[in-house]
Amino acid sequence: VITFLSDYGVSDDFVGVCHGVIATICPDARVIDVTHGIPRHDLRAGAVVLHEALPYMPPGVHLAVVDPGVGGRRRAVALRLRDGRLLVGPDNGLLWPAAQGGGGIVESVDIGRSPFRLEPVSATFHGRDIFAPVAARLAGGATLAQAGERCDSQQLARLELPRPRIEEGTLVAHVLYVDRFGNLQLDASHEEVAGAGLRVREPVVLNLGGRRSWECRYVHAFAEVGAGELLVYEDSYRRLAVAVRDGSAAERLALAPDAEIRIRRSG
Amino acid sequence: VITFLSDYGVSDDFVGVCHGVIATICPDARVIDVTHGIPRHDLRAGAVVLHEALPYMPPGVHLAVVDPGVGGRRRAVALRLRDGRLLVGPDNGLLWPAAQGGGGIVESVDIGRSPFRLEPVSATFHGRDIFAPVAARLAGGATLAQAGERCDSQQLARLELPRPRIEEGTLVAHVLYVDRFGNLQLDASHEEVAGAGLRVREPVVLNLGGRRSWECRYVHAFAEVGAGELLVYEDSYRRLAVAVRDGSAAERLALAPDAEIRIRRSG
Amino acid sequence: VITFLSDYGVSDDFVGVCHGVIATICPDARVIDVTHGIPRHDLRAGAVVLHEALPYMPPGVHLAVVDPGVGGRRRAVALRLRDGRLLVGPDNGLLWPAAQGGGGIVESVDIGRSPFRLEPVSATFHGRDIFAPVAARLAGGATLAQAGERCDSQQLARLELPRPRIEEGTLVAHVLYVDRFGNLQLDASHEEVAGAGLRVREPVVLNLGGRRSWECRYVHAFAEVGAGELLVYEDSYRRLAVAVRDGSAAERLALAPDAEIRIRRSG
Repeated sequence: VITFLSDYGVSDDFVGVCHGVIATICPDARVIDVTHGIPRHDLRAGAVVLHEALPYMPPGVHLAVVDPGVGGRRRAVALRLRDGRLLVGPDNGLLWPAAQGGGGIVESVDIGRSPFRLEPVSATFHGRDIFAPVAARLAGGATLAQAGERCDSQQLARLELPRPRIEEGTLVAHVLYVDRFGNLQLDASHEEVAGAGLRVREPVVLNLGGRRSWECRYVHAFAEVGAGELLVYEDSYRRLAVAVRDGSAAERLALAPDAEIRIRRSG
Repeated sequence: VITFLSDYGVSDDFVGVCHGVIATICPDARVIDVTHGIPRHDLRAGAVVLHEALPYMPPGVHLAVVDPGVGGRRRAVALRLRDGRLLVGPDNGLLWPAAQGGGGIVESVDIGRSPFRLEPVSATFHGRDIFAPVAARLAGGATLAQAGERCDSQQLARLELPRPRIEEGTLVAHVLYVDRFGNLQLDASHEEVAGAGLRVREPVVLNLGGRRSWECRYVHAFAEVGAGELLVYEDSYRRLAVAVRDGSAAERLALAPDAEIRIRRSG
Repeated sequence: VITFLSDYGVSDDFVGVCHGVIATICPDARVIDVTHGIPRHDLRAGAVVLHEALPYMPPGVHLAVVDPGVGGRRRAVALRLRDGRLLVGPDNGLLWPAAQGGGGIVESVDIGRSPFRLEPVSATFHGRDIFAPVAARLAGGATLAQAGERCDSQQLARLELPRPRIEEGTLVAHVLYVDRFGNLQLDASHEEVAGAGLRVREPVVLNLGGRRSWECRYVHAFAEVGAGELLVYEDSYRRLAVAVRDGSAAERLALAPDAEIRIRRSG
């Protein structure tokens, strides 16, 4: 199995051509498209989605391409994780959170000059010329050592995501990801939510610093609040999220990724 | 074979994650995406498309998720039809027209507490946590009885589509579905069109009540009328349809689903 | 293997229904979607993308549907190329450049009345009723002779793409394709670029006739110029292309497909 995530979109033939390359090299590989709708060049969004989706994918080779630096100096890499999954993509931080989620990196190779590349390698489409061919060969049984030159996992580009904490009963969280509806996914997971004593169906107070405070309900489902109302809920990745029903919380609160948000029980 | 229809869109990883869940549980299942472009929460559109597309799909497990009530009280169900197909989705009417098209329901189970669920079940993504895992297990050979608790097919939510009739030589039809071009698909099929004496290449009169009448041609293909002209034609599902070439009939006639439209031969 | 390119988009069930038809007829066929994002009825764009993507696809049956004349008089055809690939689609020029790229046509049949059609054949959806079933049967081992009636390859509709030339050291190229970012792909390939003495990292002069001239840099990657700057580069299909970083070259230069553009080394 090869899974494939990118910012290539579906208007052009980028995704189809990578599928063709994989099918040519490894006809038995099954390709699962995670999504190709990552906003163009949005490394952070790609990294978050890859990290969250990966546990639902069968183990195999996981190809990810969000690559604003294509044709430049960033490395191209293939990684083996402690849990056995193989990641293939640019060394720009995109793979980092997923690698940590898989228990960390146990082997890494630079595939920029991989013998598996399609020649001549273009300066703008390494998905086709480097990443897809390497992923296909790995799926077909090649080893990392055959795919490239060993490199130091400590030197790989990192993309650290913010981390929540609990201060005197207040959950201090951060915006991890803003989806196309303006819903704000926070970095706080089920455990921290419980640790801060937040309980479904009770009111909470959001504070964005100083007097910027909102009271709203922590609910199970959107349907529990009225249209236009702010709400806090646990999203499907078990992370705390803030939304406006039939509206945009990103606009209402004027928040972007990494913004800090403090949440506590009301009263 | 599993077919999969939803309103998840292609921007996010919802569809990809469901594919991953299916491939993890039943590696041999082949998944055919019917479409994920159903307008968000548009049950009616999802039901019409599922009903019309199903005869072209190989028999198997047919997963459909348009689920505005996710996390609420609506049941999750799996159905066996008289023609042998299995349907999996929310019990909100989405599956109803397709079930009738398959000869009716011969067995139904409530899968809300299915042993096949992924735990913990989220409140917002039953596609991943309930529907996809159940579909995958059914595709792998599990029985409905193993998937959930038997429930009464008579109590399932229904979504009745309007029905056309012929009154004194006039076809009384209704708007079934409006596509993104503003083409109006009516509920009248080939048989009713013939029954009302409508013939290709002849003029017809459309009446929307009172004096709101238009004369136009019943044609075989769009190319037979000029740009901006109203036309009536038989669409690819053999239903009568009204369109404006290079324009929107929904706007021109100010019609929405369920609107009545009377059509007769001109003169 | 069947590859599939169309202008059907992903909002509706057109693509899914064709997949269903193929899977019903030939369950073992693997379908690779090249893209379904060709602009509606844009034959030229479909022909260019098919031609460029095909070399990256495993050999097999290549289904392509951009078909503004569906239901009219244009033929439906299946073609066998010198390189062994089979093409299936409307006879409107869409397949022509790809056929030339595959060494030319060695056998062609008219499939408009193919015994493999789904009856009754609609006037608007030949992808489902003619092209997909024929492609599926060919993938399953049927011969062209079984799929339709032999026709004269010389009489097939052609779609000639412009060709570049070199005049006194100046490359005279033409716009082949404008992508959704307004990047202009030209008909000049790596060989002509070298023949005109253009060298990466050197300035070039673009002339659109008369005094309409621009000087810009011929670069390897977008990142080498500033935002809003015009650039010339070799795209991933090894064709010369003109772009504006973070902008639209099609707008800046007011150019459309087939426009002539003269490029020479500066100074």
